[in-house]
Amino acid sequence: MLTLAIGNKNYSSWSMRPWVLMKQAGVPFEERKVRFDNFEADDSQFKQAVLKINPAGRVPVLLDDDFAVWDSLAIAEYVAEKFPDRALWPREQRARARARSVCAEMHSGFTALRSHCGMNIEGPLAEVGRRIWQEQADVRKDVERIVQMWAELLAQHRGPMLFGEFSVADAFYAPVCMRFRTYALPLPAEAEAYVERVCALPAVKAWVADALQEQDFVPFDEPYRKSR
Amino acid sequence: MLTLAIGNKNYSSWSMRPWVLMKQAGVPFEERKVRFDNFEADDSQFKQAVLKINPAGRVPVLLDDDFAVWDSLAIAEYVAEKFPDRALWPREQRARARARSVCAEMHSGFTALRSHCGMNIEGPLAEVGRRIWQEQADVRKDVERIVQMWAELLAQHRGPMLFGEFSVADAFYAPVCMRFRTYALPLPAEAEAYVERVCALPAVKAWVADALQEQDFVPFDEPYRKSR
Ligand SMILES: N[C@@H](CCC(=O)N[C@@H](CS)C(=O)NCC(=O)O)C(=O)O
Ligand SMILES: N[C@@H](CCC(=O)N[C@@H](CS)C(=O)NCC(=O)O)C(=O)O
Repeated sequence: MLTLAIGNKNYSSWSMRPWVLMKQAGVPFEERKVRFDNFEADDSQFKQAVLKINPAGRVPVLLDDDFAVWDSLAIAEYVAEKFPDRALWPREQRARARARSVCAEMHSGFTALRSHCGMNIEGPLAEVGRRIWQEQADVRKDVERIVQMWAELLAQHRGPMLFGEFSVADAFYAPVCMRFRTYALPLPAEAEAYVERVCALPAVKAWVADALQEQDFVPFDEPYRKSR
Repeated sequence: MLTLAIGNKNYSSWSMRPWVLMKQAGVPFEERKVRFDNFEADDSQFKQAVLKINPAGRVPVLLDDDFAVWDSLAIAEYVAEKFPDRALWPREQRARARARSVCAEMHSGFTALRSHCGMNIEGPLAEVGRRIWQEQADVRKDVERIVQMWAELLAQHRGPMLFGEFSVADAFYAPVCMRFRTYALPLPAEAEAYVERVCALPAVKAWVADALQEQDFVPFDEPYRKSR
């Protein structure tokens, strides 16, 4: 039995990836939400709950019965190995390598986009986005690289997803699509169209619907607002 | 033919991982060094050279003939797939999943350690390290987590490496061992002994010897010194 521990759907970009991956690929799992309260205090409810299953103290965590796999990328690899018929990674070796390159690039990079435009699905932050776009050259650079990457992959594999069919790569860039929407960052038409297609995936729609239902306002994930 | 493009051996922690991995596992490759000059200017020699082979503009890059795999983690996966007999990941599924968890945790985490204690193999920075240790609670927290992780893995797999035999995980934590040395951060005896064993690996010794031969002083990687 697989159980995926996740954070708030409105905010937790790392949690969104394996959830969307497994849901979209039809891998059965149960969801366990650990609401964000405080990351600093080791005695926060979040930390207490998470440290019981993951010594790294973070979500997402995949539990296979009692065995814990943490970190979204390691979870993707684990599920891909367990369900080879779902072809979560592209089947062709070089396409698979390329998919891993762009996922790992996301995993350790794009820090400007990530820090200035935190995922906040519910928030309409277009005004804030406009200001960020003007002021933060690093954010523009991150977006430029993502746009170039998507264009190249979509041209090479002829869409609709980055590697043709849905794969781990789309799940990894789904939170980026959310950010592009929330902050209304200006994108070329093909990139915009890819964002639309990601938003239309049933698993993404389900995640977004759940996020909008949430009532929590988490101050440390809300640098730009005082309330929802 | 495999070619690995890397940065300066003294500074490039990301490059060290796949180099040590392949060298220690006996995977044949040619090395191509792209010396650091400037990361900001798109017309720096470094950027010019790297952008020709990697649109993400970073090292390391593995070239399999003309096919580029970038990002150290994606390179590790690619080499592990191409050379299954080397068992670069642990053979047992759960051990493999755990190895990927700790590698991915390194890949996107430990930002305090990484930013305050940049890899600098040549630099004896024990004084600086003492100050960092006193002042930076986040660095202490990162080290505490690494020490706990190593202890758990070494106990479970009985050493000498994190998963018994040498694996990707040791290659990924090799730059951390370098930082622990350079900054002389205080470690419990078992962690210290693991650092010793990593430093004694032939591939690590070879990398360190090359790093000490380098003459470059790269200002943006030297927040604490004025010269070598
Ligand atoms: N690299 C990890 C990052 C996970 C992560 O940072 N998760 C956040 C929530 S989105 C968290 O749990 N933070 C708790 C903390 O920073 O203490 C992954 O891919 O799963
Ligand atoms: N996540 C990448 C990171 C690579 C990276 O940041 N490399 C540095 C050198 S150690 C670099 O090329 N920096 C160039 C830049 O930041 O523009 C990996 O694992 O390979």
